[in-house]
Amino acid sequence: MAQKPSIPKGTRDFGPQEMACRNYIFNTIRQVYALYGFQQIETPAMENIGTLMGKYGEEGDKLLFKILNSGDFLKDVSSEDLKKGAIGHLAALLCEKGLRYDLTVPFARYVVQHREELTFPFRRYQIQPVWRADRPQKGRYREFYQCDADVVGSDSLLNEVELMQIVDTVFQRFGIRVCIKINNRKILSGIAEIIGAADMIVDITIAIDKLDKIGLENVNAELLANGLSEAQVKKLQPIINLSGTNAEKIATMRQVLAGSETGQKGLDEVEYVLSKLSTLNSQLELDLTLARGLNYYTGCIFEVKALDVQIGSITGGGRYDNLTGIFGMPGLSGVGISFGADRIYDVLNQLELYPEEVTTATQLLFVNFGETEANYCLPIAEKARKAGIRTEIYPDSVKMKKQMQYANARNIPFVAIAGESEIADAKIMLKNMLLGEQKLVTPEELVAEILK
Amino acid sequence: MAQKPSIPKGTRDFGPQEMACRNYIFNTIRQVYALYGFQQIETPAMENIGTLMGKYGEEGDKLLFKILNSGDFLKDVSSEDLKKGAIGHLAALLCEKGLRYDLTVPFARYVVQHREELTFPFRRYQIQPVWRADRPQKGRYREFYQCDADVVGSDSLLNEVELMQIVDTVFQRFGIRVCIKINNRKILSGIAEIIGAADMIVDITIAIDKLDKIGLENVNAELLANGLSEAQVKKLQPIINLSGTNAEKIATMRQVLAGSETGQKGLDEVEYVLSKLSTLNSQLELDLTLARGLNYYTGCIFEVKALDVQIGSITGGGRYDNLTGIFGMPGLSGVGISFGADRIYDVLNQLELYPEEVTTATQLLFVNFGETEANYCLPIAEKARKAGIRTEIYPDSVKMKKQMQYANARNIPFVAIAGESEIADAKIMLKNMLLGEQKLVTPEELVAEILK
Repeated sequence: MAQKPSIPKGTRDFGPQEMACRNYIFNTIRQVYALYGFQQIETPAMENIGTLMGKYGEEGDKLLFKILNSGDFLKDVSSEDLKKGAIGHLAALLCEKGLRYDLTVPFARYVVQHREELTFPFRRYQIQPVWRADRPQKGRYREFYQCDADVVGSDSLLNEVELMQIVDTVFQRFGIRVCIKINNRKILSGIAEIIGAADMIVDITIAIDKLDKIGLENVNAELLANGLSEAQVKKLQPIINLSGTNAEKIATMRQVLAGSETGQKGLDEVEYVLSKLSTLNSQLELDLTLARGLNYYTGCIFEVKALDVQIGSITGGGRYDNLTGIFGMPGLSGVGISFGADRIYDVLNQLELYPEEVTTATQLLFVNFGETEANYCLPIAEKARKAGIRTEIYPDSVKMKKQMQYANARNIPFVAIAGESEIADAKIMLKNMLLGEQKLVTPEELVAEILK
Repeated sequence: MAQKPSIPKGTRDFGPQEMACRNYIFNTIRQVYALYGFQQIETPAMENIGTLMGKYGEEGDKLLFKILNSGDFLKDVSSEDLKKGAIGHLAALLCEKGLRYDLTVPFARYVVQHREELTFPFRRYQIQPVWRADRPQKGRYREFYQCDADVVGSDSLLNEVELMQIVDTVFQRFGIRVCIKINNRKILSGIAEIIGAADMIVDITIAIDKLDKIGLENVNAELLANGLSEAQVKKLQPIINLSGTNAEKIATMRQVLAGSETGQKGLDEVEYVLSKLSTLNSQLELDLTLARGLNYYTGCIFEVKALDVQIGSITGGGRYDNLTGIFGMPGLSGVGISFGADRIYDVLNQLELYPEEVTTATQLLFVNFGETEANYCLPIAEKARKAGIRTEIYPDSVKMKKQMQYANARNIPFVAIAGESEIADAKIMLKNMLLGEQKLVTPEELVAEILK
């Protein structure tokens, strides 16, 4: 075991400094969720494999981490099963549990399993790690936290409004300037309807999204290459060229989608949500190219972009109409959001937005000169702690220099020193490490000095 | 999928109420750890299987949850390997990762892996779930949280003293009266030394521990049956009959262990630690039958018992001298404690010690009478949230009765009602659900009323 130990690829250790920052992120999100009446739940890391399989597409099934059955895991496996070389079939025999892949499917399972105990509309939030056997790469991990909030059992658009208020409040607290992009699945369905190409809507949004990069001509060429007719591409021109304020965009789309009831419904919904959000700090933008998880969402879709950092979406969500149907409880509408903690961490780092108190751990260190001095310091340290000051006594009476190095390495702002003369006066020498000043104080003054 | 979904046996869902209580426990422990300068770290749920295997004994190896390799997991498995029927050997080929079994081994791995970045003495705490393929039974789970704090890189007994202060502070904050039982591995070694039965020390402590239940005669009979000689059992009599105050016990043991240097050292350590803890609220008891994880601990050992509930130990810990040796970094002394969150949860429940604010989620609910009324309530709800009041607007304009049922089921103490007449007066009817009273207030008065 002389080799330095390591951790599985795609996973991370979080040291004290990273944890302080991550806790700041999670606690901020948690507090805002609670402020809007969301309640926390937790589900087990492991789910029965049947709960997970088939929920994330064929690719997702492969990315599930499966847990080898305990005991004699070959008990119910025939030599035939082992030979066939059908890996998926064999895995199903060897593993009856898997690690959760997201928080959404466990939440759906939770709602159905506990339906009798829950009060609907049910507003839950959940902050837990998920695991995916993705190929590890920069910014993509095999273990990462999700921070989800969902309301199920209400199709009121007020839920969408409040989720946007949550997003706005969270990023305001972080000090991150953001643009919230909003779209609606019904508008996209309306577009597909009027040009008669329901199955092309994803390709259309992808092509339109490239307008800024490749220009109108190339977008049109791509649409034609994707199989749209000249007439269809022509009909799309006002959508591709859509610009102006949100109100102007909606007015244009009202005309374009004049023939689609679904499309008009989508515009109604967007208009309602936007009208209730006029006091937000964040920018709000109707963006018809937004099409995340299209097959999943049925109404409002949104995504949040940081304005001052080049990075993908840092939060997203939308409305879905059949979350729990797959577990036998159809017709429960829901809407949710998910904050991307890892990306928010990067944004806060790049913009240096962490408040100083977040990264200050211990506030006061007592230097240790030996047993007599430590005895003198112990009750004073307890007094400081009772006042809420995070306090350490250096445990060993080693050289002063080493203890001061420790204080520096740990970024401790105050160091208390009590030698023979301080003890004789019933005082402590308090050193302010930031200012480089020191003064002789009583225990009471020490507490007051640090708290001020 | 019509069957009601379920979760793997031995795992649990935590609903909003349980989560509120669990968060109260974790946050209390977290805050006290931080007050004593401990810093949080997190390690991945999965460790390389080599990090885990062989660390928990043969039985522990079997209880590890192993993760099936991704992709073609049979790639490096020969048909020979599959035939042999050596389950352990095959598992090693199929699984290169496992779920952590405790927080201690991952911490040791972390310290060795990150030794260059760390400042010693290193005080870390860690609150994360662990997984064990134990047979599930009442109070024993396959997934449960551990809450550990350790100091490594200092052999000063001040660390033991501070850990006991932490224990005392935590249980004082919970309102749980406890007895902290203290022992020292060196005292036990001393006992083994003077009676010449080093390998019998575990059997001896187990037998002595039964004194209250089975009486002196039966204890002696058991010791003889375990293979001790009459002379050895005779030598043990003062230890079995040890009673009185801690000081009296120490005085007796000083004589009994007169011939053992190690034993005297152990008594010195216990005496020092006890002398520094005279101001604790908790009871402190030298208990020579305490022998938890004997092969692991090398100095101080302790355990915490609740005084008012019949339940096993709710916290424990001790000093160890070779935590990191197995990963190639010998000679690093450490001392740690671990709070048993699940048992503390049960104790708090049985004694009904949860503060009321812990179980109050949403404080204020706005009743929804329709779009006009909701429009009126939205900015008032935002005002309440800005003041820190956890607030909901019922999202759907359903029958008043249903909304009040929701408020009751959710235990929401204040309900705000605004109909035509309240809106005309720019007021809100605020109903106190606990007192059954209601009064007409302005938005400002509403905030003040709830905050008071």
